[in-house]
Amino acid sequence: MNAPLHADTLRRPIPAACLDELRALFGDRLSVAQAVREHHGHDESPYPDILPDAVAFALSTEEVAAFARICNQYRVPVVPYGAGSSLEGHLLPVQGGITLDLSRMNAVLTLNAEDFTVTVQAGVTRKQLNEEIRDTGLFFPVDPGADASLGGMAATRASGTNAVRYGTMRENVLSLTVVTADGRIVRTARRAPKSSAGYDLTRIFVGSEGTLGIITEVTVKLYPQPEAVSAAVCNFSTLGDAVDSVIEIMQMGIPVARVEFMDEHAVRSVNLHSKLSLRETPLLVFEFHGSAAAVQEHAQAVQDIVREHGAMDFDWAERPEDRSRLWAARHNAYFAGLQLRPGCRASTTDVCVPISALADCVRETARDLADAPFPFTIVGHVGDGNFHVLMLLDPDSAEEWQASERINHALVRRAIAADGTCTGEHGVGLHKMQFLEEEHGADALALMRSLKHAFDPNNILNPGKIFAW
Amino acid sequence: MNAPLHADTLRRPIPAACLDELRALFGDRLSVAQAVREHHGHDESPYPDILPDAVAFALSTEEVAAFARICNQYRVPVVPYGAGSSLEGHLLPVQGGITLDLSRMNAVLTLNAEDFTVTVQAGVTRKQLNEEIRDTGLFFPVDPGADASLGGMAATRASGTNAVRYGTMRENVLSLTVVTADGRIVRTARRAPKSSAGYDLTRIFVGSEGTLGIITEVTVKLYPQPEAVSAAVCNFSTLGDAVDSVIEIMQMGIPVARVEFMDEHAVRSVNLHSKLSLRETPLLVFEFHGSAAAVQEHAQAVQDIVREHGAMDFDWAERPEDRSRLWAARHNAYFAGLQLRPGCRASTTDVCVPISALADCVRETARDLADAPFPFTIVGHVGDGNFHVLMLLDPDSAEEWQASERINHALVRRAIAADGTCTGEHGVGLHKMQFLEEEHGADALALMRSLKHAFDPNNILNPGKIFAW
Repeated sequence: MNAPLHADTLRRPIPAACLDELRALFGDRLSVAQAVREHHGHDESPYPDILPDAVAFALSTEEVAAFARICNQYRVPVVPYGAGSSLEGHLLPVQGGITLDLSRMNAVLTLNAEDFTVTVQAGVTRKQLNEEIRDTGLFFPVDPGADASLGGMAATRASGTNAVRYGTMRENVLSLTVVTADGRIVRTARRAPKSSAGYDLTRIFVGSEGTLGIITEVTVKLYPQPEAVSAAVCNFSTLGDAVDSVIEIMQMGIPVARVEFMDEHAVRSVNLHSKLSLRETPLLVFEFHGSAAAVQEHAQAVQDIVREHGAMDFDWAERPEDRSRLWAARHNAYFAGLQLRPGCRASTTDVCVPISALADCVRETARDLADAPFPFTIVGHVGDGNFHVLMLLDPDSAEEWQASERINHALVRRAIAADGTCTGEHGVGLHKMQFLEEEHGADALALMRSLKHAFDPNNILNPGKIFAW
Repeated sequence: MNAPLHADTLRRPIPAACLDELRALFGDRLSVAQAVREHHGHDESPYPDILPDAVAFALSTEEVAAFARICNQYRVPVVPYGAGSSLEGHLLPVQGGITLDLSRMNAVLTLNAEDFTVTVQAGVTRKQLNEEIRDTGLFFPVDPGADASLGGMAATRASGTNAVRYGTMRENVLSLTVVTADGRIVRTARRAPKSSAGYDLTRIFVGSEGTLGIITEVTVKLYPQPEAVSAAVCNFSTLGDAVDSVIEIMQMGIPVARVEFMDEHAVRSVNLHSKLSLRETPLLVFEFHGSAAAVQEHAQAVQDIVREHGAMDFDWAERPEDRSRLWAARHNAYFAGLQLRPGCRASTTDVCVPISALADCVRETARDLADAPFPFTIVGHVGDGNFHVLMLLDPDSAEEWQASERINHALVRRAIAADGTCTGEHGVGLHKMQFLEEEHGADALALMRSLKHAFDPNNILNPGKIFAW
């Protein structure tokens, strides 16, 4: 049992001459081996595997440009591929074609520590980047659960636990190097902290999910490692109390660096998976960054608020190794959740609403889920109004699948009704296409489509994604 | 003597039938009176006045949509107009047509204090907005020198003194209501703090200078008024010492709310204009926002750094009225500068570079200016790497004009060579068009042009700006 594909899935033929030209360009780095195609045709979405006709492993921007020129000439679909960690079917080549694997383009190119910027090839992952710059005293904060590539994170407008303080990829990408559909190489902006020099090409490509261009290099902002860091875990008897606390904290303007919600099921799963012993109630995990004095001040303010909302405790994680274990557990919440039901197929949702609508939205969703015929977890970057539901489905049960889609639809409609969005950070891929018109309206969608037609007139770049051509 | 126009300035004829239809729509609010046309054909740029054929005063988004449909049908140019405060010729109707004055659309529509957001009509000015929301304890930080309209600020991607802490319009616009060239009404995004639901239409229109759509409503982020505020003025014997201090402060990651540079000429002009008695040396003005403890901590850290760089003093402006006078003076620096040479014509430039390149860029520019045959001032939002030169020219002197253009070109080239931009916040308008290809490259410019063609196929929206069709 899989999610129904709402996309145009007519596979396009790949002319033999196209494959010959690509082979001349890539040599051994063009593969049609079944195992390689299978690896690149599978993701964490609820969709069936869909294999590309071939996989090319790129080493340079110039090579990507030559590749794009060939594919554009033959009208062959191209799907850029980073770490393969997207959750909504972005990487599935629904119309066939060539998957362009950028994971070998994994060099940190230019570190400008004085300017708090770094330029990396698109295949560099967030953990690799932070390893390589550790000695500078700087760090890169954007942290989706998986160890995603920077190119993929830019392409999906990713965020994570730190976004409440440091922003998402939208705010943290300074510039991109992009290969266009017809194989031109464009740098979208310079390294100045701000600019009013023309249209914001950077933001056009951030979140475009491989449909407007192929990102080959990413320049991002870095931040000084905070002088002091402290984290605390705080249990509540109800989900509502936890969420209400967060709303008040945000409305007081207290600059928390992270504030994450887990429901009792999510807590149980991370306890099992990461060998922690958190109390299995709805809980919040906070982190504070700043000077020693500021961290203490913010933590005290938060402690006062959660206590008023019936918090059962406020346990410090003072030691760096305790914090690392806690956040590693949070980042692994998706995989931990899967283990609540071995052999399951997961469907995950991701909405984001204005903070004033968060409590109702989470409570009503929890009510829907209470009757669900399958296990689930709720986790959220609640400081941003963003939360996820992970639904663990019996792959052979049509009934469970239908129930999960009903819950997903109700949740998305609830978010949109509250002036929120159908996806806060996962992206559209295949799973949210059906909601875009409801969220944006037909005229806004027509503008997006005209942009796609202008940038990719032959519809070769990740075709069938975000919206139908 | 005026700056040469590098734009396509062929005026298009306005069919009488078009004016008839517009008159039917606007009644008295369509004007062809000479005085009204003159008012809307003049700005603060170094260009000659260029009058529109008529001026329409809009009252609603629906009316703007009807207006766009008529103008699009007759291929008549449309120039949106807010407060008329832009500096680079954005509002000059170089191809004739109708100026659409949005200043009567000046209602604050929806304040969502719990979510720190507000939605206003495009004609609301930044000061008006802050007046109207004062009781909520929130404020809107983006502050270009003039009391610009929010629509105009969005259209030019404006910033100001607070950007170093709170960001520019790019970061602070959550959503826009935009009328397209063919008269459709589009809302670019919902109020969720973040979203990955499709292309970033909001950021496409922010900074598009009226060339892609007509902004009629703006939803922006608000911030809690800081618990404590303090400001300090700090004199230096050389411009280099002042700038070097800022670079070190930024590189230490100290979260200053504002850090503004003025050279001795700028200080003299604001002393004269605003009746202040600042010491007439290169100086920095700092502001700190936060809790009382945080403000003190940051101010102390800054004080230590400026002292190491030879600061002559560090004078506190503790009382709110002293701070207000100081910042009012800074915001009026442009008009103050003009008074250094009564009857002059001003040419102002605006570059932004990575912070590591700021000291050299400012020093070399000051060297160029030392030989200039006219008075000048240098002021800067130096925490962002952004600074301005105001050159005060004899309107009858070709020699002065040529000298100022030579300095402007050298400065822009220097900024671009340092991986900076030809405009940090003023926008392209007419004055920076000649530098866009040098900054972005021909292929990036071609992408921008294809976006323009897709969104405005008849080239009616502020034609002849940013780039030639």
